[in-house]
Amino acid sequence: MLNYRMTAYILGSIAVITAGLMLVPFIMTFGYAEDYNSTTLGFGVTIAVLLAAGIPCIVKKPANMHITSSCGFITVALAWIMMSLVGALPLCISGVIPDYIDCCFEMVSGFTTTGATIMTDIDGAPQSILFWRSMTHWIGGMGILVFAVALLPKSSPAAVHLMKAEVPGPEFGKLVSKLRFTARILYCIYLALTVLEVILLVASPKMNLFDAVLHAMSTAGTGGFSNHGMSIGYYNSAYIDGVVTAFMMLFAVNFNIFYFILIGHVSAALRNEEFRTLFIIFGLATLLMTVSLTLGEIYENFWVSLRYAAFQAASMMSTTGFTTADFNAWPTLCHFIIVALMFIGGSAGSTAGGIKVSRYVIGTKSAFAGMKKAYSPRGVFTVKLDGRPVSDDLRASVGHYFVSIFIIVVVSLALILLFETEKLGLAESFSAVATCLNNVGPGLGAVGPIYNFAHLTPFTKIILSLDMLIGRLEIVPILLMFYPKSWIPVK
Amino acid sequence: MLNYRMTAYILGSIAVITAGLMLVPFIMTFGYAEDYNSTTLGFGVTIAVLLAAGIPCIVKKPANMHITSSCGFITVALAWIMMSLVGALPLCISGVIPDYIDCCFEMVSGFTTTGATIMTDIDGAPQSILFWRSMTHWIGGMGILVFAVALLPKSSPAAVHLMKAEVPGPEFGKLVSKLRFTARILYCIYLALTVLEVILLVASPKMNLFDAVLHAMSTAGTGGFSNHGMSIGYYNSAYIDGVVTAFMMLFAVNFNIFYFILIGHVSAALRNEEFRTLFIIFGLATLLMTVSLTLGEIYENFWVSLRYAAFQAASMMSTTGFTTADFNAWPTLCHFIIVALMFIGGSAGSTAGGIKVSRYVIGTKSAFAGMKKAYSPRGVFTVKLDGRPVSDDLRASVGHYFVSIFIIVVVSLALILLFETEKLGLAESFSAVATCLNNVGPGLGAVGPIYNFAHLTPFTKIILSLDMLIGRLEIVPILLMFYPKSWIPVK
Repeated sequence: MLNYRMTAYILGSIAVITAGLMLVPFIMTFGYAEDYNSTTLGFGVTIAVLLAAGIPCIVKKPANMHITSSCGFITVALAWIMMSLVGALPLCISGVIPDYIDCCFEMVSGFTTTGATIMTDIDGAPQSILFWRSMTHWIGGMGILVFAVALLPKSSPAAVHLMKAEVPGPEFGKLVSKLRFTARILYCIYLALTVLEVILLVASPKMNLFDAVLHAMSTAGTGGFSNHGMSIGYYNSAYIDGVVTAFMMLFAVNFNIFYFILIGHVSAALRNEEFRTLFIIFGLATLLMTVSLTLGEIYENFWVSLRYAAFQAASMMSTTGFTTADFNAWPTLCHFIIVALMFIGGSAGSTAGGIKVSRYVIGTKSAFAGMKKAYSPRGVFTVKLDGRPVSDDLRASVGHYFVSIFIIVVVSLALILLFETEKLGLAESFSAVATCLNNVGPGLGAVGPIYNFAHLTPFTKIILSLDMLIGRLEIVPILLMFYPKSWIPVK
Repeated sequence: MLNYRMTAYILGSIAVITAGLMLVPFIMTFGYAEDYNSTTLGFGVTIAVLLAAGIPCIVKKPANMHITSSCGFITVALAWIMMSLVGALPLCISGVIPDYIDCCFEMVSGFTTTGATIMTDIDGAPQSILFWRSMTHWIGGMGILVFAVALLPKSSPAAVHLMKAEVPGPEFGKLVSKLRFTARILYCIYLALTVLEVILLVASPKMNLFDAVLHAMSTAGTGGFSNHGMSIGYYNSAYIDGVVTAFMMLFAVNFNIFYFILIGHVSAALRNEEFRTLFIIFGLATLLMTVSLTLGEIYENFWVSLRYAAFQAASMMSTTGFTTADFNAWPTLCHFIIVALMFIGGSAGSTAGGIKVSRYVIGTKSAFAGMKKAYSPRGVFTVKLDGRPVSDDLRASVGHYFVSIFIIVVVSLALILLFETEKLGLAESFSAVATCLNNVGPGLGAVGPIYNFAHLTPFTKIILSLDMLIGRLEIVPILLMFYPKSWIPVK
């Protein structure tokens, strides 16, 4: 059941916040001669529209500020769709991307931190537009509603449902008792890490401040938009590769871990099972790809192979999607690892996409417990995560998540293959769905690193956009939109 | 814990039964001039070995005939491995397949009803060997231990654990209270349907009795070995295609359904959810492939497309693996549907492989219940199958099954891609694992309908053999073999 008044109030707030954030690229348009006029108009009109629509919704507080869990999910889904549709306006009005569906694809890709692009001449696009694209990653990474909650003067009763819907992972854990403080802590860590990356990046002579801020925002959101068609490969610098690799992995870590380290609980943080598993998988994937690249004699020696393999493993596992090489030319084992890492993804409570490491940990432990149960049917086997037992409900929800992802992949792939006029191969089209659903960015073959998504049909772009939203919001919010009961007004 | 004495007794019985079954091809060797000598020797020696090893194990009944569930699983796994290793001897001794690892691959493929072959000149091979290959499908389809239970004069306390391990599906349901009668009913239906198919096949002027029996056995076990390299496509007959299509789907139906129809409960049988879902999926897949083939202008018209599409859909969903066309040349959508059908498979309690339709029904319903739960967290949502509630344990085990299959696919694929010297593409190698794990037969590309598995490395053949056994015995028996506690002798 939907509390329409409250949903409008929340969406109105989000519209006003988005308008505020859009002031940054709007002001930038005055600084770059080539951007002036068209892009100024684009951002200006959009800000006006956002304020005109948003302010009437928030001038008066709703009498009933309580929302149900499902209302929270729907509101979050609506907020994300609204942001994408409105965020696309500057791209369209400025004429940088003439087709509105393409603009929407680009913005869904931005906010969901996917980083798949339909832009063919990225290096020639206006700076303010490129900055806005990467800014959407930063906003979408931690989440706009988490941002809204952080701005609240008082914790609202609705906040918990909104944050639950937007923060990824099988469970939502508050850091401190007051939710708005949790949101503020998260955004402070997020901002601090982003600034640290900017500082480390500008230390390289190859990168100016603009590029550094832009790529730091894309890394922080684990998005992957760059202002160069060659992505991070453009700089061809081992130092930059190293910094970006490290930060991609940092942003794939559950932010609670950083908080625990901040308050001095270092050993507890390092014992966290998801954290350890994340880095074990990253290490294994890097090792396997390095061996495969070395055996395949793709690069000069082992160390160069290691550099490219580690970068790509971090980029895929964190679901960022930056590239330093055209991995289409790599051995098949690397293609397989790349696609597998997409589906694994980062940690719960991070900005990364994918199915999340903790779901695999719970799923694998449950499967082992099931095997032990087959061995001694009368035994009782509890599944534990970080020493605490995992509830049956949570285990079941993890199982359902895998099943749902499987069904979504199958349906998306069938629809795309049925209607896509340009015939994609099976691995190619599967990788397109995988990269969008897991919010990664590049796929294999015709949607690989040196290509883009521009050549696909509008229908395919819409399906992939839905997949991106489903992946970022972890299925339920988007699916509930198709469930008629969700739309019944609250009494 | 393993009751070694009882396990030896059961394996001894299986050895003697296998020797008995092998008399059929042994006698056949005298009827075909070209087979005489080498194949006679092959089957003769093997029968002698089986009897020499088997009879000492069964002359005295064990004092303690009770086994635990895990002992049952291990015994079944050992029986299947023994049958494959011994069944490979005639192929090797006769010189038809010189390499013993190849022989074992062929026999694992036979008993697990996969039908993937490493034979390059099938049409030129001795008749008795070809007959034995298809016979292994028939034996493996319903299961050798179910056969052994059917032969028992009295129901043994061990029987339930053996049948539970061998009959596929998430739950094992007895038809009648006495287990050996259940086994006999199953084998009677199995035999009756096989004979019916033989009769319908010989009705075609294009097929002689030998070919009819051979293909009926391969269909019944949903295996897929043929005595022609071109499989059913060799006959190029719409009638034969139709008969085989119908029987492939019949053998993908839970045999309990046939029993209920036999005892007059027709409407109850037809209301069975798994049964309906099986045919809905088959219909949808056929329709989509027909449309795709028609749009792609692969065949003359819609009806020819329908014939080939229906045959291939039935062949993949029942995991038989017969082919009438080189589907490598079909549109990508068809490749996708073919691989998807492999993973769906047939019904529980049928001879088909795959994950089984009932697991998808339970999994999908659980996922929907989970979504409803997200909508109203305090609601209670029971998942029902055929009107009866599905227990939490069963739902959990279905979830674990999906997770385990996923892990097995990932590990197998990684091992194959790492060590396979001939570089397979991602879709190709994935399809090789999919087709073996789901006991189908042909894959895509270099392991597609007009090729075979001969060119793979021995290491890859061993991994794929393990996948076939894991798929046929549904994971647990094979995995328990690697669990040291399983091997502790019973007190």
